[in-house]
Amino acid sequence: MNHGLVQLKVAFSKELPVIDAAIDAEITQLAPIIRPVAEHVMQGGGKRLRPMLTILFARAFHWRGDNLHTLASALEFLHSATLMHDDIIDNAELRRGKPAAHTIFGLAPTILAGDVLLALANEIVARTGNPDLITCFSKAIMQTATGEIMEIAALGNAAMSKAEYIEIITGKTAYLIQSACESGVIAAQGSPKAREAARIFGLNLGIAFQLVDDALDYTSSSATSGKPLGGDLREGKYTLPLLLYLESLEQKQRAALIAELSQPPISGTRQEEIIALISTGGYAQQTRNEAKAYLNLAKQALDSFPMSQEKNLLNSIIDFVLTREK
Amino acid sequence: MNHGLVQLKVAFSKELPVIDAAIDAEITQLAPIIRPVAEHVMQGGGKRLRPMLTILFARAFHWRGDNLHTLASALEFLHSATLMHDDIIDNAELRRGKPAAHTIFGLAPTILAGDVLLALANEIVARTGNPDLITCFSKAIMQTATGEIMEIAALGNAAMSKAEYIEIITGKTAYLIQSACESGVIAAQGSPKAREAARIFGLNLGIAFQLVDDALDYTSSSATSGKPLGGDLREGKYTLPLLLYLESLEQKQRAALIAELSQPPISGTRQEEIIALISTGGYAQQTRNEAKAYLNLAKQALDSFPMSQEKNLLNSIIDFVLTREK
Repeated sequence: MNHGLVQLKVAFSKELPVIDAAIDAEITQLAPIIRPVAEHVMQGGGKRLRPMLTILFARAFHWRGDNLHTLASALEFLHSATLMHDDIIDNAELRRGKPAAHTIFGLAPTILAGDVLLALANEIVARTGNPDLITCFSKAIMQTATGEIMEIAALGNAAMSKAEYIEIITGKTAYLIQSACESGVIAAQGSPKAREAARIFGLNLGIAFQLVDDALDYTSSSATSGKPLGGDLREGKYTLPLLLYLESLEQKQRAALIAELSQPPISGTRQEEIIALISTGGYAQQTRNEAKAYLNLAKQALDSFPMSQEKNLLNSIIDFVLTREK
Repeated sequence: MNHGLVQLKVAFSKELPVIDAAIDAEITQLAPIIRPVAEHVMQGGGKRLRPMLTILFARAFHWRGDNLHTLASALEFLHSATLMHDDIIDNAELRRGKPAAHTIFGLAPTILAGDVLLALANEIVARTGNPDLITCFSKAIMQTATGEIMEIAALGNAAMSKAEYIEIITGKTAYLIQSACESGVIAAQGSPKAREAARIFGLNLGIAFQLVDDALDYTSSSATSGKPLGGDLREGKYTLPLLLYLESLEQKQRAALIAELSQPPISGTRQEEIIALISTGGYAQQTRNEAKAYLNLAKQALDSFPMSQEKNLLNSIIDFVLTREK
């Protein structure tokens, strides 16, 4: 692990307990009937990447004020709410190695608790009295949900172009990460130029984050990632590793594989075979390489920032996203 | 129809096209993939009671500004979003006489489009730049979703007290109507006293509204209400008409009926029989009478308001809620 990543790990281990305390304080204020669902979801061991981004951007622009960790927790509530609805939609059994909320609490309470957490995120932001922050948040929710609908509409679409794929992951993942970064700058009353740089950083980091996620879905074992290998393949999601693999095939083979994938279910053995072909064929690695291009854009966006410890840590987050194994 | 109700009808027919135009203008701005769902839900013939309340309260306190109908539309987006999630949860086939959104667009797009409309409502409010309004909205969403979770937790609970029942309908219905009223006063920068009066009016109107709704579920035919008779009975919801009927029975009969209801499915003929017993026994009417007490409290809250056309219309809304047949 390089020096920057070690520094980042130290910074995370310092901030995490404070972020978690802010999250717990909010959960305590919820109606008793919501608390068990909220606790299950929020204490499920997330990376807290989004709140960390908000904190770093706010500090980089000389945040003066209290409750930065509370504001940052709003991003995690928002993120978790989208995951709750997501897991229902994807019929996912596991989230971060634990049973997904809907498998424990049922469909209805999970949909509604997701709504509560979305509203809580907005309410936390409303406390800042800053309408720009609320707009930033509301747009993030709209864009994330819109991206997810586009992803569903594209299920089973083997003819998806790379541009369409990038548009979907930008919607479902990158805008929320963009908002995490931008909201730190807004809260700290940074300049419009700084805000734009934070947006560019966040957007590209977010696209890269999802590219790596999609690569990991073909390479990271359940023990490491907390969810089963090859979930995207099973769900009919044509992510980049699969698209690249299909592209590499001769027309006849490609047509045969598309025909096969279009008629689920596919046996477990055959699934493992396809996953292995994609993984050993280097298409997951190629997807990671694709992420590098976006991370370079993120790095460039940081260049205009004055030297600071936060800038160093943000650069390390770029390295973390590229090299992460879960 | 009394004079006040005629006036109210005239006022609604004047405002409705303007509210609908504001709603349509917002839908046009949504991503193309969301629009069909949003249009289906928003153009489904709602009463637009909530936006109308916002408009009347804002005008009663001398609203100065543009886009009052846009702000008011936010209440309808919020309300519709909760209905979309609601209909999924209740497995409802019909909404306002038309197929419920999830039966046309599927579970996933409907959950997500609901999230988009919740976020859109927040975003519209953020445009006002008024953090008080945003807090009012976010709390309304949280309380509504919490009330719905409480309702689900109480499904099949024949031992529910009247107080518990009132708590549930306050959560799932009254807080949102309260927020519709309060947000009008906040937007018009009315006094804290006016705001409190609007809250009391809205809360009691909302409780009465749901009481009448629960009465209509036992008396209003599908042709009138747009949804099948006796839905609550089928869904295992112990609303006030059923609770009152159970209370009227001798202990042995009561225990027998509770045992029967606890083991669905109940045949269609038997359902109709129970519905008829409740309706002809006057328990739906008794529920409406209960609503009167809350409407009196709403009326009292209005007393402190200076004379105005809006005050007259708000009084007529009280009459409308009491006498409505759908």
